[in-house]
Amino acid sequence: MEFVLDRTDTQTHARAGRLTTAHGVIETPIFMPVGTVGTVKGIAPDLLQTQVQAQIILANTYHLYLRPGTELLKEAGGLHRFMAWKGPILTDSGGYQIFSLAERRKLTEDGARFQSHIDGSYHQFTPENVMDMQRAIGADIIMAFDECPPGDAPETHVRTAHERTLRWAERCRRRLGETEPLYGYDQALFAIVQGGIFPEIRRESADRLIELECPGYAIGGLSVGESAEHMYAMVEVVNERLPAHKPRYLMGVGTPENLLENIARGVDMFDCVMPTRNGRNGMLFTTEGIINIRNLKWQRDFSPVDPGLDRYASRTFTKAYLRHLFVAGELLGLQLASLQNLAFYLWLMKEARLAILEGRFLGWKQDILPRITQRR
Amino acid sequence: MEFVLDRTDTQTHARAGRLTTAHGVIETPIFMPVGTVGTVKGIAPDLLQTQVQAQIILANTYHLYLRPGTELLKEAGGLHRFMAWKGPILTDSGGYQIFSLAERRKLTEDGARFQSHIDGSYHQFTPENVMDMQRAIGADIIMAFDECPPGDAPETHVRTAHERTLRWAERCRRRLGETEPLYGYDQALFAIVQGGIFPEIRRESADRLIELECPGYAIGGLSVGESAEHMYAMVEVVNERLPAHKPRYLMGVGTPENLLENIARGVDMFDCVMPTRNGRNGMLFTTEGIINIRNLKWQRDFSPVDPGLDRYASRTFTKAYLRHLFVAGELLGLQLASLQNLAFYLWLMKEARLAILEGRFLGWKQDILPRITQRR
Repeated sequence: MEFVLDRTDTQTHARAGRLTTAHGVIETPIFMPVGTVGTVKGIAPDLLQTQVQAQIILANTYHLYLRPGTELLKEAGGLHRFMAWKGPILTDSGGYQIFSLAERRKLTEDGARFQSHIDGSYHQFTPENVMDMQRAIGADIIMAFDECPPGDAPETHVRTAHERTLRWAERCRRRLGETEPLYGYDQALFAIVQGGIFPEIRRESADRLIELECPGYAIGGLSVGESAEHMYAMVEVVNERLPAHKPRYLMGVGTPENLLENIARGVDMFDCVMPTRNGRNGMLFTTEGIINIRNLKWQRDFSPVDPGLDRYASRTFTKAYLRHLFVAGELLGLQLASLQNLAFYLWLMKEARLAILEGRFLGWKQDILPRITQRR
Repeated sequence: MEFVLDRTDTQTHARAGRLTTAHGVIETPIFMPVGTVGTVKGIAPDLLQTQVQAQIILANTYHLYLRPGTELLKEAGGLHRFMAWKGPILTDSGGYQIFSLAERRKLTEDGARFQSHIDGSYHQFTPENVMDMQRAIGADIIMAFDECPPGDAPETHVRTAHERTLRWAERCRRRLGETEPLYGYDQALFAIVQGGIFPEIRRESADRLIELECPGYAIGGLSVGESAEHMYAMVEVVNERLPAHKPRYLMGVGTPENLLENIARGVDMFDCVMPTRNGRNGMLFTTEGIINIRNLKWQRDFSPVDPGLDRYASRTFTKAYLRHLFVAGELLGLQLASLQNLAFYLWLMKEARLAILEGRFLGWKQDILPRITQRR
């Protein structure tokens, strides 16, 4: 994996870069659609490529381990082949999912023992077997196994989690060095900076992980209930330390506003379920603002879903038709809304990149934010 | 609307024809995917065209009247524009749906009063207002308002229903003559032959409706619980009477076997929810037989969904992947299965047409039936 910075903004910390993987080049800043169990919900890979124009997607080790299972993925020749997605894939390590299980998991220095959310069966994740699973899945970018404390965790707990995350990251790196990729291409390990909303712990976490010389770094443990101000402050603290020549991935974030504000703070990569999950609930992100398509006000609105976006779902169908699909509970509504929202997110990243390259990012951000964040 | 017969089979009664509408030419025999409320469930119109290769789709007056309403469809410029489908559309009259409401409807000579299945509100359908609704919807082919008795109805009831259907067909024809199409193209009225499983009533219904000189005829009141033998016998009885130079549409039928057997008996057009509904339940029609994709036997089967069908859904994904999508309850599974099944139905019609044109329909049918109807 290679990362090249094409331009760093002078008024902000925004960066435009290119990340080269075995499955293609990713132009950053980038948003990664979430394909938890090997499918971006409701969107076939061909449309993901042509309509969403996704450059990389995210999948989840935890979910894929439970279903269809990493052994089956190995037989299939890896996740790319299994799901027929030809572009790059990043897999999360399962750390976040396991720690979301709360009462259903138990933590030791060795790893995490947990009960499946599907059938209650018991499983053990360790830094080592999580690396092996990600070898079997075959993602281009794989995440270290981390401990992600809850948003309201006290400082002592956050410190313990950071220290364990550090030891686990070392074990991940060692395991990866002892094993080979299964499908003939390299897999890049990103370590995850923890530290909650405590600047000192964040700095320490970043500094210590940098010593591992990973090809990229993620900022984890945010978007877990803290305020946007806390999130931005922590991103600033961490990005001050992270090496400029390596990609930075802010996990699980966020709204279009969150994305632009964090790009301004030097983040290169994002993922979030919001565009697909909110889309399935009838909430549309458009170039003209945020729409609840179920509202009566759209019943007779025969204007396109999003006239500002040059995509099939955005231009072909009217708001009245999309509302009808939601009111009638039709599958096509979920698909079109997901396509619109993901296409919007990817469009926003493309526009941001262009603005950075042309040295007008700050002005562009100030212009576009009121327009795309207004409720219509 | 114009109907041309390209060839009539000499060993069977199969016909290959072309039906020209304002929205395109339909090559018969043809299967019409069902788009009840203005969407073929889970399939966007572009894929309906390129992947399913649908030539005409069906929508329902009853459902569209309730949601989004025919006034709204008028404002939208008709159903074609509302749903962004450029090809021909046929609308059923609502007769079948209303008579399915059983306890929630009351019949008089004037029409049918019924309660909405959505909110229990009261509505009245008459031959006249059903024609007006179908004017507003703007389908290329519209159906007369009929009384469709249940499959186990006694002969006296079936006779009464046939006689009322006849009087209603006359009223439909008159109303259509008194009104103009709303969107600048002609709409062709098909009358519906009733008569249950009683040959004498079927003959009388056909003979009397032929006098109305409609541009096409449908056979209704079948596929309502009777045996396949009864269905085939009734189709034979009716098709002996129907004029050869007009298209014949068998409503609500059926399995791939039903389609081929009825093509052999001179039917040109079909519709059925089976490919989409069964698809959503994980039942796949393929060129190699019928598959329940949820079965454990497909868990590690990395062969294509249907190697014999040259379509994205059929060739790109493995049975193991599609099974995974169903087991995980993923939306994409419903879409891919629906695409596969509809593409298979349309492929089957295309192959049947080719076989008729080349004078080898009977042999082809005998060859292909065991293959496509086997349970795998």
